[in-house]
Amino acid sequence: MYLLDQRFLPHQVRYLKLGSAAEVAEAIRSMAVRGAPLIGVAAAYGMALAALAAAGRDRDELLAELEEAGRVLASSRPTAVNLARAVERVLEEARRAGEDGVVGRVLACARRIEQEEEEASRRMARHGANILPSGPVLTICNTGSLAAGGEGTALGVILEAWRMGKVTEVLVLETRPLLQGSRLTAWELGMRGVPYRVLADGAAGLALCRGMVSSVVVGADRISASGDVANKVGTYPLAVVARRHGVPFYVVAPTSTLDLASPAGEAIPIEERGEEEVLGFAGARAAPEGARAWNPAFDITPAELVSALITEVGVISPPLSQGLAALGGSRVQEKGRLGARLAPE
Amino acid sequence: MYLLDQRFLPHQVRYLKLGSAAEVAEAIRSMAVRGAPLIGVAAAYGMALAALAAAGRDRDELLAELEEAGRVLASSRPTAVNLARAVERVLEEARRAGEDGVVGRVLACARRIEQEEEEASRRMARHGANILPSGPVLTICNTGSLAAGGEGTALGVILEAWRMGKVTEVLVLETRPLLQGSRLTAWELGMRGVPYRVLADGAAGLALCRGMVSSVVVGADRISASGDVANKVGTYPLAVVARRHGVPFYVVAPTSTLDLASPAGEAIPIEERGEEEVLGFAGARAAPEGARAWNPAFDITPAELVSALITEVGVISPPLSQGLAALGGSRVQEKGRLGARLAPE
Repeated sequence: MYLLDQRFLPHQVRYLKLGSAAEVAEAIRSMAVRGAPLIGVAAAYGMALAALAAAGRDRDELLAELEEAGRVLASSRPTAVNLARAVERVLEEARRAGEDGVVGRVLACARRIEQEEEEASRRMARHGANILPSGPVLTICNTGSLAAGGEGTALGVILEAWRMGKVTEVLVLETRPLLQGSRLTAWELGMRGVPYRVLADGAAGLALCRGMVSSVVVGADRISASGDVANKVGTYPLAVVARRHGVPFYVVAPTSTLDLASPAGEAIPIEERGEEEVLGFAGARAAPEGARAWNPAFDITPAELVSALITEVGVISPPLSQGLAALGGSRVQEKGRLGARLAPE
Repeated sequence: MYLLDQRFLPHQVRYLKLGSAAEVAEAIRSMAVRGAPLIGVAAAYGMALAALAAAGRDRDELLAELEEAGRVLASSRPTAVNLARAVERVLEEARRAGEDGVVGRVLACARRIEQEEEEASRRMARHGANILPSGPVLTICNTGSLAAGGEGTALGVILEAWRMGKVTEVLVLETRPLLQGSRLTAWELGMRGVPYRVLADGAAGLALCRGMVSSVVVGADRISASGDVANKVGTYPLAVVARRHGVPFYVVAPTSTLDLASPAGEAIPIEERGEEEVLGFAGARAAPEGARAWNPAFDITPAELVSALITEVGVISPPLSQGLAALGGSRVQEKGRLGARLAPE
């Protein structure tokens, strides 16, 4: 399995060759691949690699191997729920298979998860672009094709709205510490010819204050039943300041990012990453020897600050908890994809 | 004149040898020296260099040289009012001198401005440390001895409160794009043995949300008559989020940073610096070729979000405009230093 190593973008296009679930887990942990929907897809293919490696063993041994691979993959990063959910879904599929069908069902499930995310991105883009106001849009982190299926979550909406002539410019927060904004989002926008400017994260306040922003559009790593949104650290202050200036704040996420088993934002685990990410960048050290850092990768934006949640099944307006409850309830009738993906267990 | 070149800190302690006002202006423009009170002091010594270079000329020629040097120095950076004010003050002093007294008076005035800033820092530290609540404090940019006289403005208060046993830890925002937090503030705190951690600017929201911060303490580059505060970009969102969580937000600035001629924040010019500062990190390029950036160096925090303004003449409580008006009025009675420094003309 080949995977674009995002750590070297935009300067180098390098691919990692991954031969096992453990190697996929390490690629997720090191953020060679990142973005909530995309690490779900990567984990599903990690399960497929585990299945292929154990092909020929008897069913129980194969399932045990898959369960072990699932543990390694699911523990690689804690916040994005897509990861654990993709692993669970592949495992359920494997358990339903007969003696000779496990490997085939696992591969098909991984492929299906990928296709569903691509389709979800197309639908989110349409729903979101329709409600986005015209003018400049501000975004954080990377939520494009490097983070999700197809053209992405928030960036997919922005690109669709740009093609409709609604988005005049994208203000991209650089997104410290790993600079997914200036490295990845800038790269994706530049390749498509979309006008953009990169801002230091702290400059978002002045941009909002000066009326330079018509809407803020962000992705999500996990959304609780209350509608609280875990997303890249720095999202929460953005939402607070946007509200102060009456600028709409949209969250774009596939239903695979919903975690209706978490009642509210406080229940969502926030990953803390290595201190060295904050103390330097790409080998350039900023802080003095002996410096310490605190490096939470995400923060929680309370539902009350979200103007609308854009999913592939439609736009959920406030109060988000009601819309999410209705969505969760619908899985009883609807036996299909959404039902399976909303399963909180 | 020797000046510590802050661009190489914390890795190298290098000094610049400056021989003219133009060289001092370039050091200010390039941010080899920075911090509102300190660039005032540097500009005053730049004027002294101009006076020394023209010593021996007749009085009119000397004053013309000083006026030209003043224009170059005052235009090197636009936002911190200390710069223009120090230049004006030296010029007034020069104009009051007799035929043979210009050079001496200019040198004495530069030295006096430096001493006053040192004394102001001591007084601000005492006033501020008294009102600071106990616990961890969060700050942005560098406001220490690398930014002001003595131990600094906000950092001077923090250090004094730490010596009193009130401050348990300093959370230092790295302060993109030039990283004055992780490079300079971390260096100053580390040398003094004060416990600190560096945070990405976007992580301040989570720290405030989690109750990890007892107070936010920042400096200022210019304060309008209304009490609106121009300070390092990223300060405004910090103030907005602090207010949301009921965390006191203190601004520490000497009266040399007050600009009572600016009625409100909108009247304060906001410097926009080169795009390359945002597109890279400590010499490492982050963004793709052809990327554009927007790089405002400051933002405006409205007076209503400031819990108290700590100056060398005392603590001003809200409404700040009233306290500032009283301070401005007092210069009529008080013929001394404060009066001269508050002169809005």
